[in-house]
Amino acid sequence: MSVTAPKGWRASAVVAGTKDSGDPDLALVVSDYPASVAGAFTTNQVQGGHVHICRPRVAGGSVRGVVVSAGISNSGTGAPGVEDARRMAAMAAEAAGVPEEEMLVCSTGTIGTRIPLDRIERAVGPAAKALSADGGDAAARAIMTTDTRPKVGVRAVDGVTMGAMCKGAGMISPAMKVAQATMLAFITSDAAASPAWLREVLEGGLGSTFNALTIDGSTSTCDTVLLFANGASGVDVDGSERFAQAVHEVMGELAYAIAADGEGATKVIRIRVSGADTDADAATAARAVASSLLFRAAIWGGDPNWGRVAQSIGQTSVRFDPGRLRVEIAGVEMAVDGLETGREAEAAAGLVTNEVLVHAELGQGDGSFEILTCDLTPDYVKFNADYKT
Amino acid sequence: MSVTAPKGWRASAVVAGTKDSGDPDLALVVSDYPASVAGAFTTNQVQGGHVHICRPRVAGGSVRGVVVSAGISNSGTGAPGVEDARRMAAMAAEAAGVPEEEMLVCSTGTIGTRIPLDRIERAVGPAAKALSADGGDAAARAIMTTDTRPKVGVRAVDGVTMGAMCKGAGMISPAMKVAQATMLAFITSDAAASPAWLREVLEGGLGSTFNALTIDGSTSTCDTVLLFANGASGVDVDGSERFAQAVHEVMGELAYAIAADGEGATKVIRIRVSGADTDADAATAARAVASSLLFRAAIWGGDPNWGRVAQSIGQTSVRFDPGRLRVEIAGVEMAVDGLETGREAEAAAGLVTNEVLVHAELGQGDGSFEILTCDLTPDYVKFNADYKT
Repeated sequence: MSVTAPKGWRASAVVAGTKDSGDPDLALVVSDYPASVAGAFTTNQVQGGHVHICRPRVAGGSVRGVVVSAGISNSGTGAPGVEDARRMAAMAAEAAGVPEEEMLVCSTGTIGTRIPLDRIERAVGPAAKALSADGGDAAARAIMTTDTRPKVGVRAVDGVTMGAMCKGAGMISPAMKVAQATMLAFITSDAAASPAWLREVLEGGLGSTFNALTIDGSTSTCDTVLLFANGASGVDVDGSERFAQAVHEVMGELAYAIAADGEGATKVIRIRVSGADTDADAATAARAVASSLLFRAAIWGGDPNWGRVAQSIGQTSVRFDPGRLRVEIAGVEMAVDGLETGREAEAAAGLVTNEVLVHAELGQGDGSFEILTCDLTPDYVKFNADYKT
Repeated sequence: MSVTAPKGWRASAVVAGTKDSGDPDLALVVSDYPASVAGAFTTNQVQGGHVHICRPRVAGGSVRGVVVSAGISNSGTGAPGVEDARRMAAMAAEAAGVPEEEMLVCSTGTIGTRIPLDRIERAVGPAAKALSADGGDAAARAIMTTDTRPKVGVRAVDGVTMGAMCKGAGMISPAMKVAQATMLAFITSDAAASPAWLREVLEGGLGSTFNALTIDGSTSTCDTVLLFANGASGVDVDGSERFAQAVHEVMGELAYAIAADGEGATKVIRIRVSGADTDADAATAARAVASSLLFRAAIWGGDPNWGRVAQSIGQTSVRFDPGRLRVEIAGVEMAVDGLETGREAEAAAGLVTNEVLVHAELGQGDGSFEILTCDLTPDYVKFNADYKT
């Protein structure tokens, strides 16, 4: 059901022609009522045109919907790209019969190429006509680029329903700030909530979900997460920790789905670092392991190569004593006090599953962090030799 | 001729059995006279056993030679590994008839496994007997691990001859400090020089050669560069800028040879960033591009994807205006003032060569930096799924 699971939300998907495949590539999501909104956007200095349009509109706190196109990211397109994004939103707003300033816009795909607005213009009318309470799944498919499958989530809590869709498989290393990925994620709900509370909820969840995810270390120019609440359930969730937790669970599910669908990936790798002086140190160490091509390739090859974990952490300035390092791979202690245990065959047997847990304990303090990535395969390279993102 | 090109240097290579291939894997390099020495070592916090032995001996300023084994790096082996390295040097010193404290030692290969000292012990005698003024090329082959070819250099200047060998193809992102890969590089010479001058020369060359090189962003636990001068030519080079320049040229040649032999690589990518506020900013930006899997894969695929250059630089905190960015790939302007020029086909035609120049001009100031890397290919991934480094 995706984004149309909550009350008062309709969605649709049509072919605009921004994807080469001929598949639906324009999604429209509209709320029957004004919806409170919070957003988080990429911290990359190069930002897609849509980011410049969305940021002030999200700051306004109330919107009616979002139009999303896939195939061309409309980033690296300068001021003309920002104007294109503004016009794209205006076209969608007019077609959907909502105020121009209350329509958000997102794009994902090739960098450096402008959006063919004539195609968007032809597509928004049919998209508005097709809006339906059953349209969520089609919308989730339309926003895909290199994804192999749609990524959706639904959750109900205390009389409120939320629905979500996201996309992303490569150029994934979100580093987002609230009120300010090409990961796009949309979480709708029929809760009644203030924009301030939505911002707090969104911000509270980013650090352990989307911002704790990396496929290839490349932070996209377009990363965007939008959280909506249109009030249709009549349930006020301001201050509700249960609502916040449910949103965070959905965010975590979506982030996991992105790792699992990483370009060319066969396995999710969950990297946990504990025993660092601080959580920030643990995050630096975990990111270093997740960024190691050598380690990620070894996991693809079924090789529980703890030496590459030690090498990666050693490369950082995180304080630790290599002589106290403990590394577990797939539940097997590979190194204790910095020395190998010789249990390689046992750990290798555990690498046949779809998820591999890697745990490095630094023996310093209480700082910990967990990050998701995936294995590095020849298919990732082949894919990105052809595809333009 | 490699390291035996200068007067008074002999080398040899024998099979110790640390490589699985059965190829020669132990190299011995000995000077007939005490040689001044300077060294630079990895800044990784996890360091191979040999680094702990070499650092104080190099600080002593005078040595007689170095023994190098390939196949097992003797890092991630803790205090026992340091003792193994000390014993390995002692065995080689005794066999070569030089003082124990004046023999250096290096190892490269798998992390986390101890060196089989019994094999080393059996090999050092034959290695010492085989020492010869023609042994440089055999030594250069013996130190190879994942390298596809030996890497050597020879240069003569003002009556002084220098010879060099190095190895390295993966886990290459040297970040070395003087007096404190797995890149190993050895530069012998018959100059007469003080250790202090050698240190100055070595330090002066690192930043633009080995430390401006990355294959995969992984800084090895064992990176070591050693520069020797045994005085056999009778020419004192202390303070000679021509000598320094010749050393830097050899260092640059070796670094280039490593990029060209990067695991799975088909092309060297030379990334130049200019117009940054500072050289340090330019280096950060150039490293970001060189670290982009997406960009390196695109170059392998013959795709002059400037958007991935912009995305990579935008991900850093380097100050620049995306609207002033100019990107050239293979001599063709791909973007001017942050906007595409549409000359993609022209640039793609230039990507068939063995070296691709990428130039990003930030339009801020006078800071510039150049870094070498190579394209990312499926073979890199396949290789590292099997090989343990």
